[in-house]
Amino acid sequence: MEERYLEDFAPGQIFRSDRLTVTPEAIIAYAREYDPQPFHLDDAAARGTLFGGLAASGWHTASLTMKLLVGSEFRPVGGIIGGGMEELAWPRPVRPGDELRLEIEVLEVRLSQSKPRQGVLRARCTTLNQRDEVVQVIVPKLVVPRRG
Amino acid sequence: MEERYLEDFAPGQIFRSDRLTVTPEAIIAYAREYDPQPFHLDDAAARGTLFGGLAASGWHTASLTMKLLVGSEFRPVGGIIGGGMEELAWPRPVRPGDELRLEIEVLEVRLSQSKPRQGVLRARCTTLNQRDEVVQVIVPKLVVPRRG
Repeated sequence: MEERYLEDFAPGQIFRSDRLTVTPEAIIAYAREYDPQPFHLDDAAARGTLFGGLAASGWHTASLTMKLLVGSEFRPVGGIIGGGMEELAWPRPVRPGDELRLEIEVLEVRLSQSKPRQGVLRARCTTLNQRDEVVQVIVPKLVVPRRG
Repeated sequence: MEERYLEDFAPGQIFRSDRLTVTPEAIIAYAREYDPQPFHLDDAAARGTLFGGLAASGWHTASLTMKLLVGSEFRPVGGIIGGGMEELAWPRPVRPGDELRLEIEVLEVRLSQSKPRQGVLRARCTTLNQRDEVVQVIVPKLVVPRRG
């Protein structure tokens, strides 16, 4: 897959990722390290909570989305580097056995005012499960170098 | 530490976390699993990039922030559960050896329109390093149960 400069991106372009299956072991391992709350650690403990059963931490979903993004067709020169985003939504939780994939839509491409050798790319990254239900939406602003 | 219902929170309250030191090994282990880009994996490879040296993935910073939050004085009844946030900013990267801590400021507390037994709490969670420089800001919307 070819790496792209700022000039090679345009609003409306869609890029896709591979698929990734989320095991209960992976959900629990992430939670033990970063988000040790009962509903992310144990299915029985999760039944009495808002989640009604084991659910991945939203930050685990975000981390897995980054893994899918790094391996996807979306390949800016220099890597995927951003200073943040205007939105992060988790409309439903990721469950054990879910198969995740990513759709990346380029929303905006613009030159930097202050740095002539780079620009800013805004994209909507939608993470979907095996039923095409949305589990996460982020709209990051990425730094992408200009050609030459 | 006492768990709080929605009624126990008010705008302007500040909660704090413990401190956590970020080792180079932890930066690399997270990156191998979730964000395998050269500037998160190897100090020498990172020198020629925008980062100028090994830097933690922004999603690693977010994951460590969640770890600090779960262990902090900020303890809503039922846990820390949110459907997303309006902002996520990484003004500077986390570096090997950085010591992180968290300040949580309650911005807004309101009843749910549709669910009489719960409400929504909006908070600004600022992650700082050992020089009191901001490495992350998030403003999550959390679901918090009402008393009784």
